[in-house]
Amino acid sequence: MSTTRDAALRYAADYTHHYRAKLAELLAIPSISTDPEHNADVEHAAEWLTGELARLGASNAEILQTNGKPIVWGELNAADADAPTILVYGHYDVQPVDPLELWNSQPFVATERDGSLYARGASDMKGQLMAALAALEAIKNSGAYPLNVRFLLEGEEEIGSPSLEASIARYADRFRADLCLNPDTGMIAADCPTITYGLRGLAYFEVRLRGPAHDLHSGIFGGAVENPAHVLCDLLAGLHDEEGRVTLPGFYDRVRELSAEEREELARLPLDDQAFLQQTGAPALFGEAGYTTVERIGARPTLEINGMYSGFGGTGAKTVLPATATAKISTRLVPDQDPAEVRDMLLEYFKTYVPQTVSHEVEVMALGPPLITERDNPGNRALAAALESVWGRKPLYKREGGSIPVSIYLQRALGMPSVLTGFGLPDDNLHAPNEKLDLATWYRGIDALIHFFYNAADGDIR
Amino acid sequence: MSTTRDAALRYAADYTHHYRAKLAELLAIPSISTDPEHNADVEHAAEWLTGELARLGASNAEILQTNGKPIVWGELNAADADAPTILVYGHYDVQPVDPLELWNSQPFVATERDGSLYARGASDMKGQLMAALAALEAIKNSGAYPLNVRFLLEGEEEIGSPSLEASIARYADRFRADLCLNPDTGMIAADCPTITYGLRGLAYFEVRLRGPAHDLHSGIFGGAVENPAHVLCDLLAGLHDEEGRVTLPGFYDRVRELSAEEREELARLPLDDQAFLQQTGAPALFGEAGYTTVERIGARPTLEINGMYSGFGGTGAKTVLPATATAKISTRLVPDQDPAEVRDMLLEYFKTYVPQTVSHEVEVMALGPPLITERDNPGNRALAAALESVWGRKPLYKREGGSIPVSIYLQRALGMPSVLTGFGLPDDNLHAPNEKLDLATWYRGIDALIHFFYNAADGDIR
Repeated sequence: MSTTRDAALRYAADYTHHYRAKLAELLAIPSISTDPEHNADVEHAAEWLTGELARLGASNAEILQTNGKPIVWGELNAADADAPTILVYGHYDVQPVDPLELWNSQPFVATERDGSLYARGASDMKGQLMAALAALEAIKNSGAYPLNVRFLLEGEEEIGSPSLEASIARYADRFRADLCLNPDTGMIAADCPTITYGLRGLAYFEVRLRGPAHDLHSGIFGGAVENPAHVLCDLLAGLHDEEGRVTLPGFYDRVRELSAEEREELARLPLDDQAFLQQTGAPALFGEAGYTTVERIGARPTLEINGMYSGFGGTGAKTVLPATATAKISTRLVPDQDPAEVRDMLLEYFKTYVPQTVSHEVEVMALGPPLITERDNPGNRALAAALESVWGRKPLYKREGGSIPVSIYLQRALGMPSVLTGFGLPDDNLHAPNEKLDLATWYRGIDALIHFFYNAADGDIR
Repeated sequence: MSTTRDAALRYAADYTHHYRAKLAELLAIPSISTDPEHNADVEHAAEWLTGELARLGASNAEILQTNGKPIVWGELNAADADAPTILVYGHYDVQPVDPLELWNSQPFVATERDGSLYARGASDMKGQLMAALAALEAIKNSGAYPLNVRFLLEGEEEIGSPSLEASIARYADRFRADLCLNPDTGMIAADCPTITYGLRGLAYFEVRLRGPAHDLHSGIFGGAVENPAHVLCDLLAGLHDEEGRVTLPGFYDRVRELSAEEREELARLPLDDQAFLQQTGAPALFGEAGYTTVERIGARPTLEINGMYSGFGGTGAKTVLPATATAKISTRLVPDQDPAEVRDMLLEYFKTYVPQTVSHEVEVMALGPPLITERDNPGNRALAAALESVWGRKPLYKREGGSIPVSIYLQRALGMPSVLTGFGLPDDNLHAPNEKLDLATWYRGIDALIHFFYNAADGDIR
């Protein structure tokens, strides 16, 4: 007996070319949220998505104004008014593209090579967001929606979602749902459908040191004035010990230790160090002593320098003693660390150790908490069945190193659980040159989301 | 009785406007030697100077080809073939101008404000070089040259004169002279004519670290891979101890300690810490424990970070784990340190301490030795009398922190002593935005050089 579900899956199989073209349209919009020069592009992406929601039948699709980047909202109604409601989350902003010279094709011209689509945002997460819309398009064209769907598509995830918590409070009624589908996490491998149950938080800072009032001749003044680049190196070097542990007093106090059972499960994941070496191209792996690579990424906090610059960066030799030295640093936090506490530790560190020979300021650029969810909740059960229908095997459960503030905000403000999945692969070059999306896996992901929506309508996700 | 010397001084007093206009012409040529994009400008400056030497009567003025930037050469002949010969040294290349936004006027448009001429190279050293040519022009227009003059005007001083030693050997016959006048050092203050008798050497390096093959997502991979920016900070922080001393084993072994007498003399120089604070705008002074500021600059070696960069340097937050981290570092060396030995110490340091988690390479960009001269040689006596004629007081003798490789090369290859002076001031912003030349002091400097050439002709400088 042919069902609407079967019809939707057939539609998805027939319309891959159309899906790919739609995704390419969105990828062509350079919606880089961290760069004010791209504000208009961010707006443009929001407008484009509003049109897509209308095409899916959301007659009330609109752009919600916020204190930051706009949120695209809309709703699709089930024939049965008592049907459950799912909130589909996505972000339409992307990371910057520099260093541009390392891209093999234009970052905002989706380009297919060897079965992958290359573009900034292809995997993170315009591709994932469009997979959800593609699944809904297939369902719409095969009958009525089996459940109510609402959307929360934000434009500032890549800068730590600074205004999102306030926006969720302000527009709470529009976002209420039984659960949130968040397809912004990735797969362990193309043959391993994956559900994420833990995410790290993010706190991001810029530290600026100033010594002399202007750059000095390093011969005429070198030796008499403290070089702010030296001070910065001392300060940053002091943030880790030799075993890769963060030295901030109290940094690990609230870290929830892994249970023996969880460590065993993580050890069974098909992720070996050889695969990490291959994905990263690093000469060797390195991390906090006493933990495996999977544990270091998923269950342990880190502190990283994301950028650092001082003095002369041009070609050749300039004998300058720099006036300033700046670093961007961020910490990834795990349950039950509190980003505000970590911020205070870092501010205290600089206050204590910056010498009198330079002045300093620290800008707090993002503060997002970590998240851990129940693995066996109704949403994850509906998702697990959907993934198994497509891949023919049970999904793996992982804790991921990235940060998705929205999930904790929805939990906190609306008591709404999130199911976290996605169809990106570890070698997709997220945040790096040559980001790509594996198309075959993406099409399977669309099928899986079709199953998920029907499973959620059939089951009890409330 | 009016002499040719008086006539020359009158000419100089009458032609200040002309001198200033000539200097502005040279300052308009952006001859930045470290940037290959300015190669044509460097050539242009050399051609312009060849024309100036011809105007002074050097019928054989020419551009000498070298393995690096061209050298401008020429000679002016005295009526008396037995007259002594002076080699006038100068460099027509300049430092880069970034950060451009901190300049109050265009760096290559000489702009007068408050009695100073602002432009890149105004003080270092196009102004000094043009002071020597202006003095010779005044002498030429007042009679015959009282001595023979040869020129060595190089275009690569600001990058450490990498090909100069070979060029001096190749063209030794053209450069032979009784002494070299090198006006590339500065004055302690506008009312303190200054002779420099010690210069620091310079060894310049670029250190490049590479970790992963490309930038990584700091959430997805952070904690599993060593961050090359962390490694760079550790390595650079390890090069100094807490008291500001360089930690390279053996670095100080060959440093000639200051005698008690020299320390007393340096202490009498009218240079107090307050003046250094004012010139630099630094919140506090800092340097090697156990030495005064003047000693730290003139008589002690240093190691400085001149530039450092890694990861994201744009506006906002990018959560990237950088693939590379780079630093430009240089050491200023004092007698009797050997730049090649210091290079070996630094290469050994990185070889020993760069961990297996990153790869590294070190490029040696300059190796110039330090210099110390006899204070009471005939050239310095002729110069001291000239300075006293103009300023009405005896000059001060100082050791300077900068590096001028040519003087040691001339000493080594041709046994030629150098006299080191100049008419730049400590607040001229050398190598920094808003470089300037104090015009009143510059005109006095031209007068002093007129006296110097006549004194040298009258006395016995051989």
